[in-house]
Amino acid sequence: MTAADVRTERGTHREQREHVAALHSYLTRYQLVTWTSGNVSERVPGEDLFVIKGSGVEYDELTWEGITVCDLDGNAVDGVKRPSSDTDAHAYVYRNLPEVNGQVHTHSPYATAWAARAEEIPCVLTAMADEFGGPIPVGPFALIGDDSIGRGIVETLSVSRSPAVLMRNHGVFTIGPSAKAAVKAAVMTEDVARTVHFSRQLGEPLLIDQDDVDKLYARYQNVYGQ
Amino acid sequence: MTAADVRTERGTHREQREHVAALHSYLTRYQLVTWTSGNVSERVPGEDLFVIKGSGVEYDELTWEGITVCDLDGNAVDGVKRPSSDTDAHAYVYRNLPEVNGQVHTHSPYATAWAARAEEIPCVLTAMADEFGGPIPVGPFALIGDDSIGRGIVETLSVSRSPAVLMRNHGVFTIGPSAKAAVKAAVMTEDVARTVHFSRQLGEPLLIDQDDVDKLYARYQNVYGQ
Amino acid sequence: MTAADVRTERGTHREQREHVAALHSYLTRYQLVTWTSGNVSERVPGEDLFVIKGSGVEYDELTWEGITVCDLDGNAVDGVKRPSSDTDAHAYVYRNLPEVNGQVHTHSPYATAWAARAEEIPCVLTAMADEFGGPIPVGPFALIGDDSIGRGIVETLSVSRSPAVLMRNHGVFTIGPSAKAAVKAAVMTEDVARTVHFSRQLGEPLLIDQDDVDKLYARYQNVYGQ
Amino acid sequence: MTAADVRTERGTHREQREHVAALHSYLTRYQLVTWTSGNVSERVPGEDLFVIKGSGVEYDELTWEGITVCDLDGNAVDGVKRPSSDTDAHAYVYRNLPEVNGQVHTHSPYATAWAARAEEIPCVLTAMADEFGGPIPVGPFALIGDDSIGRGIVETLSVSRSPAVLMRNHGVFTIGPSAKAAVKAAVMTEDVARTVHFSRQLGEPLLIDQDDVDKLYARYQNVYGQ
Repeated sequence: MTAADVRTERGTHREQREHVAALHSYLTRYQLVTWTSGNVSERVPGEDLFVIKGSGVEYDELTWEGITVCDLDGNAVDGVKRPSSDTDAHAYVYRNLPEVNGQVHTHSPYATAWAARAEEIPCVLTAMADEFGGPIPVGPFALIGDDSIGRGIVETLSVSRSPAVLMRNHGVFTIGPSAKAAVKAAVMTEDVARTVHFSRQLGEPLLIDQDDVDKLYARYQNVYGQ
Repeated sequence: MTAADVRTERGTHREQREHVAALHSYLTRYQLVTWTSGNVSERVPGEDLFVIKGSGVEYDELTWEGITVCDLDGNAVDGVKRPSSDTDAHAYVYRNLPEVNGQVHTHSPYATAWAARAEEIPCVLTAMADEFGGPIPVGPFALIGDDSIGRGIVETLSVSRSPAVLMRNHGVFTIGPSAKAAVKAAVMTEDVARTVHFSRQLGEPLLIDQDDVDKLYARYQNVYGQ
Repeated sequence: MTAADVRTERGTHREQREHVAALHSYLTRYQLVTWTSGNVSERVPGEDLFVIKGSGVEYDELTWEGITVCDLDGNAVDGVKRPSSDTDAHAYVYRNLPEVNGQVHTHSPYATAWAARAEEIPCVLTAMADEFGGPIPVGPFALIGDDSIGRGIVETLSVSRSPAVLMRNHGVFTIGPSAKAAVKAAVMTEDVARTVHFSRQLGEPLLIDQDDVDKLYARYQNVYGQ
Repeated sequence: MTAADVRTERGTHREQREHVAALHSYLTRYQLVTWTSGNVSERVPGEDLFVIKGSGVEYDELTWEGITVCDLDGNAVDGVKRPSSDTDAHAYVYRNLPEVNGQVHTHSPYATAWAARAEEIPCVLTAMADEFGGPIPVGPFALIGDDSIGRGIVETLSVSRSPAVLMRNHGVFTIGPSAKAAVKAAVMTEDVARTVHFSRQLGEPLLIDQDDVDKLYARYQNVYGQ
C-alpha cells in the first residue's frame, strides 16, 4: 500500500473517526505524547475493519480526516493519510484478541523509562490493584515492520490481568473493550509508572499482599463508576 | 443503595454543590488528580448531611449535578450520580470529627510516593511548619469497602497537628474547617511532598528544630492572610 | 498595624501597583508559587515607599487593589489588603541596599530543595555564569517576625554577584534594579536549580573554570538584549 | 554592528520571518526554553542570508519583527532587533554545512543536565534509533563571542548521524533540512533526554544492538510520515 492508494477518501465511518480523533486529546492533555508520536485505534463494530491515526499527523491538526480506515491485515481502505506506522501491531492484536475493541500506543516518559530497563512496574498502589490487577508486565524487544510487536503484545497480555504492556526499549501499548477504555489505561499507566518511580527513588515501596490485590481488583472491576 | 436510587434529583443544596464542584478545579490545576480519581466533600451546615463528588465523573463535565448529597452514613439522599467510592471514608470522618467540615482525597504523585513507602514527610521547610505544624504522618493500609480507611484517617490525624494523612499504598486525605481549607491542605501536601522529595534525592535535608516549628506554626495559624 | 488600618484605600501609585500585580503572572506561569505563596515588590521612585503583594491574596484575583503601599519600615500606608507576611524582609532590604528597586520571594521547588539542604548551587552552566556570575549562595536559617530574614538576605548577597539567595529551609529571595529584573532572577534561579539538580542525580556536573565564569558574566551584563 | 544599525527595517523576507517566529511556539509549548533563552534560525533559500530571533525578545511578544535577517557572517542586514547572541554560531554552521537550512538552540533542562556532565545520551529507545540513529553526542566547552561554538557543533555533528549535539555546560544545538525539522529534533532531544534520565535513575537501561539501531534508523528516515 502506498500513500497514493489512500487518496480516495470516501468518508465512511465518519462519526467513529471523529470520536477517535477527539480521544487523542487525552494523550496531549496528560503529556503522554511528543510531536506526532502515539496513536489510538478502534475496531469498527460488526465489520472486519478498524480506524487508526494517520502517520506523522500533528495533534493540533488532527480531525476525522487524519484517521484512516484499515482492514484487519492493516491495509488502508478509506482515508487521505497513510495509517500509523504501528498499524501492523494494532491489526495483529485485533485479529488475535477478539474481545479487544480499542488500542493505544504511547512513549509516555515514566512508563517508557521502565520499558528501557525491561522492568515491570510492581503493584504498590491500591490504584494499580484496581486498574491493573497486579504489576504492569514487560513485553519483548521487537522491531517494527512485521508481526513481532503485535505478537509480543498478545503473548504478554494473554497471561496478565493488565490492559497495558511495556514493550522493551519502546513504549506502552494498551488494550480495552473500547478506544476510550484503552485511553484510560494508557493515562493510568503513566500515572502509576510515575508515582512508583518517585517512590523507588528514595527507597523501596511496600508491595500489596496478593490477597488484597485480588480483592481490590474484583471490587473495582464490578462496582466503580455509574 | 444502588445507582437507580439516586435518579430522583430534587436539586437541594444547589449552591453548596456548585461551590464544591468548582473547588475540584484546584485539583486539576495543581495536577493532583488523574482521570476521575480524587474528590472533595463538605458538610452541610446545620444538617446531618454532606455533599461529595459522584463516582467516576470526569472533571471536565463536573457541574453541581455531579455532586451528590449524602447522609452521615454515606447513603445518597439527593442527586443523579452514585457518590464517590470513597464516601464511606468521608462519612466516618464527619461522624467522628465534628470540627471537620471539609475533606479532600487525592492520589497526588509525590505525596503518594511517600505513602507507598509508608514514610512520613519530615518537617524541613518553614512552609511545612506553617501549614502542618510538623511532619505529615502516615496512616495504615486499609481496604476500601468498610470503615477501615475512615478509621485510619481519624486515628492518625487525632494525634497530629497535620490536616493531611498519607494512607499507606493509597494516597492523601485532608481535612479542614471548610472544603476550601481541605483543598488548600491537599495542594500544600503535594507541594511540600515534592520539594522534600527533590531535596532528599541529593542528600539529607536539615530538620527544623521543634522549637522553631512550634513558633512558626503558632504564628501562621494566628496571623497569616486577611 | 492591623488589617483595619489599611481599609482606607486612596488609590495612590495605581500604575505601579498594576505593573507589580501583572508581574506576578510570571510566578504562576513558571510554576514558582503554590496557592498564595510568593510575592513581588518594587520601590516607589523618589519616595521612601514600596509596593508589595497583599497577604494571602490568590493569584487569580490579584489586581492593583491586591497590592499595598508600604513605608520603608514595612507599615502599610495605602491599600485594602494587609501586606505580605514577608514585608519586613523586603523593607529591610530596601533600607539597606539602596541600589535595589525590586524584590521577589518564592518557594520554587527545585531551588527550595537546595535550600533545605543548605547547599549552594554550583556554577556548572554557562547560563548560570551569565546571570549569577557564579554559584547561587545559601543564607542562614531565620524566623519570620523581625529583621532576621532581611539581614540574612543582605549579608549573603553583599558578598556575592548573585541576585538570588537560597534562604535555608525556606526558599528563594531575589533582588534587582527593577521588579521585573528580580522576577527574571527568580525565574532563572528555578531554571538552573532544576537543571543542576537533574545533572547531579546521575553523576557530577563539571564546574566551569572561574576564569571562564568571569568572562561570561562580564559579557552578559554588558552585551545581551536590545 | 550595534543595535542602532538595525533600526532601518525594510521588511524583507516577511513571510519567512513570520514562519520562523511562529516556530518558536513549539519551544514554549514543550517547555524547552525559559524567559528569552533559545532561538530558531532558517537559511533564506537562494540567498547568502538567514533569519534568526532577536536577542532578549520575550516569546509572548515575538512577531516577524522580532526576527532579524543576517548575512552568513552574522551581520544584521534587515530588522529592528539586534540578532540573538548565538548568531555567530548559527552563521558558522550555515557557512560550513551547506545541507543545513535550519537550526535551533535551547537550554532544555534534561538535555542540558547531560551536557553539564559532558555525557552522551545512550541509544536505549527505539524512538532514539529512529530519529538520531544512535547516541546524542557531546560537543566541547566553548565560550561565546567567536567561532568556538559553531566549530564545536560542526565538528561533532560531522561524525554523527544525530541532528543534535549537547554542547558541554551549555545546552542543545540542532540542525535540519528546514527550521521545522531542527525544531522537531530539539523537541525529540529533550523527550529522549528525559526518558533516558528517568530510566537511569533506577538502574541501567538496556542498549539496543547496533544492528537493530541501523535497521530502525534506515526505515524511519525512508518510510515514516506522509
